[in-house]
Amino acid sequence: MTLEAVRYRIGSLQILNQLLLPHETVFEEIRSVQDGYEAIKSMKVRGAPAIAIVGCLSLAVELRAGAGGDDPVTFIRESLCRLTSARPTAVNMGRAAQELMEFTENESMEKSGEQLRGSVIGWIEEMLERDVEDNRKIGNYGAQHILSGVPRDSVTILTHCNTGSLATAGYGTALGVVRSLHSLGRLKRLYCTETRPYNQGARLTAYEAVAEGFPATLITDSMAALAMREKAISAVVVGADRVVANGDTANKVGTYQLAIAAKHHGIPFYVAAPSTSCDLTLESGREIVIEERPPEELTSINGVAVAAPGIDVWNPAFDVTPHQLITGGIITELGVFLPSELQAALTGRLTAL
Amino acid sequence: MTLEAVRYRIGSLQILNQLLLPHETVFEEIRSVQDGYEAIKSMKVRGAPAIAIVGCLSLAVELRAGAGGDDPVTFIRESLCRLTSARPTAVNMGRAAQELMEFTENESMEKSGEQLRGSVIGWIEEMLERDVEDNRKIGNYGAQHILSGVPRDSVTILTHCNTGSLATAGYGTALGVVRSLHSLGRLKRLYCTETRPYNQGARLTAYEAVAEGFPATLITDSMAALAMREKAISAVVVGADRVVANGDTANKVGTYQLAIAAKHHGIPFYVAAPSTSCDLTLESGREIVIEERPPEELTSINGVAVAAPGIDVWNPAFDVTPHQLITGGIITELGVFLPSELQAALTGRLTAL
Repeated sequence: MTLEAVRYRIGSLQILNQLLLPHETVFEEIRSVQDGYEAIKSMKVRGAPAIAIVGCLSLAVELRAGAGGDDPVTFIRESLCRLTSARPTAVNMGRAAQELMEFTENESMEKSGEQLRGSVIGWIEEMLERDVEDNRKIGNYGAQHILSGVPRDSVTILTHCNTGSLATAGYGTALGVVRSLHSLGRLKRLYCTETRPYNQGARLTAYEAVAEGFPATLITDSMAALAMREKAISAVVVGADRVVANGDTANKVGTYQLAIAAKHHGIPFYVAAPSTSCDLTLESGREIVIEERPPEELTSINGVAVAAPGIDVWNPAFDVTPHQLITGGIITELGVFLPSELQAALTGRLTAL
Repeated sequence: MTLEAVRYRIGSLQILNQLLLPHETVFEEIRSVQDGYEAIKSMKVRGAPAIAIVGCLSLAVELRAGAGGDDPVTFIRESLCRLTSARPTAVNMGRAAQELMEFTENESMEKSGEQLRGSVIGWIEEMLERDVEDNRKIGNYGAQHILSGVPRDSVTILTHCNTGSLATAGYGTALGVVRSLHSLGRLKRLYCTETRPYNQGARLTAYEAVAEGFPATLITDSMAALAMREKAISAVVVGADRVVANGDTANKVGTYQLAIAAKHHGIPFYVAAPSTSCDLTLESGREIVIEERPPEELTSINGVAVAAPGIDVWNPAFDVTPHQLITGGIITELGVFLPSELQAALTGRLTAL
């Protein structure tokens, strides 16, 4: 079985409602921009790449049904504005909206009505294909790089948070590397951390692992170092919210601690991220502002209190892993690079596996 | 307010049911060894010192009621054996059982029936008093040692799991050090990890911190390294389930990972444990067998499923921190020792602060 969290066929879109996971697998029809907006806002779909894809596809579906009439430019602009406002911190939707609006305005100089709609739909469908294709490349490059150190053996991977089909248009980034290893028959076992406080590992990565038939084991975040010592972890592979010019990487809180533990055990630590998650405008991770989220994410689970009333809480959503700890490399759709090579590689001055 | 988790009055024992914390404060009557066994096994009482105290006190209560008849030796032996089997990794119960059995056998050469029961009960009541007194010493030695490096400042402590009044006969070990710092007016802030999967930090340490008025902040286990980098942690202080001859320490899973992160940040890492938690019969931590607990502790919280059905789980209850990572020292009621000094200190060949 292959998990398909975003089902797009020409003119039709369905998404897996992640609010019901892991207990129920329910696909919901997205017929309009308003449906897309609500799915993003309510977190039925999550993960920065997936939000952008679902948002744009909801627009494609409504355009296919003729929305915007003879002059769809205004409809497209208003739709993108609305979609971007659903989760304003998810940068990918904002970036996609900006690029798509530029494309639309250029096209509108020569086209209108049905023709313009066709161009815009084409752009969105290409975006979907490109995202999945980039993830496949990340998966393959990452798998080859990890396997290059172990010519015959199968490997044991530890990952954090969810970076799979549920967070992207499909295939996944860090979990895409795991998927590639599994399809090569070289995945011995995946260890996934539960990823407190939002439990994306326990709820989503574990769900994907069961659905795809990966040999996989769930651990608490606190067991990762012990797993490295006792379970012969071959590599740690995580995703990224943002990679900056020197290779410092912002990712789900806990990533930094995993990187320290991996270094202590001499286990290669990889970041898997499309080049669109790399932000060369920032020099170092010190410039990244870390979002702090509400205390309730720690103090209750599914509405049930799990901590002592009255305790103060610190809840940073992300942390920054310094490039020195990214010992395996940064896996992109262009290849696997050392943090020190990233800038040159992304600006076309370096090609590497 | 001072928390009293073990209420013993002659012939009567009540324990605070920690499974219901932090929501309900319910004391339960322990009338027999079987009650004691079940309370330990089901983790209504937890923490290695508290397990030993409650186990032995449950025996005292049943002896006071006349258990064992004219020749209580067999009853005492079988009871201690059963109590030790409830949580085999916690060394204190095993040690108390061995010492108490030796005492019983010696006494039984001259006494029997009511007289022998009286002697054994007296031994157990003395053990309770000694435990609280030892914890006060641990608290004071630990606080002085930590403060010796920072003559004027107040300090920020990070701890794991629960080692307070709820884990001991009273006062606490690692949390006893925090208590001493607080009473000296030198505790700037306590960071406590939630301590998955059983959430002793979120439920119990946070409960004690609120009850005692410590300035305290709850974090997830995955945020500890980030807290070390961002929050000027002065020292990490944890408890121990067992410290062996070379200083290797078995403690709640996650301790090893904290010790690695502390080392990475150059932050002193302390283990606080009474000498009764030290087991010089084992040379190194490799000899410690780690208890693995049921998957349900990870996959559900308060009976609500929080992980994807069908996922495999690894749930080791403890890990072993190698002595090289215990950079601050081992805080006992005899003083604070480097791991390399521990054996000499405990066998009377060394005295140190």
